[in-house]
Amino acid sequence: MTKELIFYTNPQSRGAIVHWMLEEIGQPYSVRVLEYDTTMKTPEYLGINPMGKVPAIQHGDVVVTEAAAICAYLADAFPQAGLAPALENRGEYYRWLFFAAACGEPAMFDNAAGWKADTADLQRSIGYGTFEMTFDTLAGWLAGRSYVAGDRFSAADVYVASLLNLGMDFNLIPRKPEFEAYVAPLLERPAKKRADAMIQGLMAQGV
Amino acid sequence: MTKELIFYTNPQSRGAIVHWMLEEIGQPYSVRVLEYDTTMKTPEYLGINPMGKVPAIQHGDVVVTEAAAICAYLADAFPQAGLAPALENRGEYYRWLFFAAACGEPAMFDNAAGWKADTADLQRSIGYGTFEMTFDTLAGWLAGRSYVAGDRFSAADVYVASLLNLGMDFNLIPRKPEFEAYVAPLLERPAKKRADAMIQGLMAQGV
Ligand SMILES: N[C@@H](CCC(=O)N[C@@H](CS)C(=O)NCC(=O)O)C(=O)O
Ligand SMILES: N[C@@H](CCC(=O)N[C@@H](CS)C(=O)NCC(=O)O)C(=O)O
Repeated sequence: MTKELIFYTNPQSRGAIVHWMLEEIGQPYSVRVLEYDTTMKTPEYLGINPMGKVPAIQHGDVVVTEAAAICAYLADAFPQAGLAPALENRGEYYRWLFFAAACGEPAMFDNAAGWKADTADLQRSIGYGTFEMTFDTLAGWLAGRSYVAGDRFSAADVYVASLLNLGMDFNLIPRKPEFEAYVAPLLERPAKKRADAMIQGLMAQGV
Repeated sequence: MTKELIFYTNPQSRGAIVHWMLEEIGQPYSVRVLEYDTTMKTPEYLGINPMGKVPAIQHGDVVVTEAAAICAYLADAFPQAGLAPALENRGEYYRWLFFAAACGEPAMFDNAAGWKADTADLQRSIGYGTFEMTFDTLAGWLAGRSYVAGDRFSAADVYVASLLNLGMDFNLIPRKPEFEAYVAPLLERPAKKRADAMIQGLMAQGV
């Protein structure tokens, strides 16, 4: 029996990352739109994600939160979609998925908040070093590559390309040529376009 | 043919997480000790990790950086060690591995640096919300549990328990009873004790 797949999101949120991933997977899912400050903070939803944040998914009785974790889980749960690389590319896959989520994200948000790792001690201890170093490192990896891991599109690309795309759209990270060259073709994927159209639809309905 | 496994670390670093993981895996590996500011910043090592940080591993010709990514990779690469859960528990596994790396770590370091997400806007956009919410959420999950995912020890426990243990040792996070109850038995694992003894040995040699 197929387990039900429920997706908790808001059209203006990191839920867009998971929306894209779900469209790549191509399995049926139901969307539950939650509103900031209200339905995201009900006891019922806090039972799903005590952080009161989206995205989250429920797959049968498994709950997964954290956009990057949801991408990694869905890739493994639906191997037929071919989004979880074989072992030989799994090192790169995890490396850049974690780098984006645990270095790229914090570097971007700390920088936007005006929090600068500006002493040698802090740069040594903080996981991302500096904002500049983090995005230079990512640009160095992406230079000349179509995909993060090996020569195939994977769940890591959904996450990394989404982060870079959102970051550039909101002027939170520099528009490096390596980022634009990597992101542009991925945004043309049919699954990404379907997800974007659904998000537009949800916004037009005012939900 | 077995691929060579090389571990780049410093005895006083997040390398301790990977050291524990390698001992759980139980395969031969060679240790390359790097010094802060000097051998971590050579062109040779920057070719391995352009961030100039440890830990990193090289397995055959695959390089993996990011402590959490290395744990996830080694678990998949050496399935006989039983540290990568089966699909039914992979949702929880990824959820808390990413939560620890991408919420727990930044919350801890931002808080130590005196950077407080103290406006509603910032708490809504920053991935970890607030320091308090992040560690309350983790404590809520760990309450009454021996392991992060299902009822078996996994690579996620190596990472989560290491983060909590280091965080409590350095007074960076509160000594919540849920954390102490979860961490204490894991620190007694033979692999953890072997890793700690090796780290002590490296420190005594002044490397
Ligand atoms: N670490 C989480 C962050 C999730 C997150 O912060 N979501 C925001 C929207 S993009 C949210 O739901 N904020 C609502 C709130 O904090 O009240 C992830 O990567 O999924
Ligand atoms: N995000 C990385 C952080 C690694 C890191 O910051 N390592 C520190 C030691 S704990 C380091 O090597 N610092 C040296 C430097 O930045 O120069 C991870 O989780 O592995």
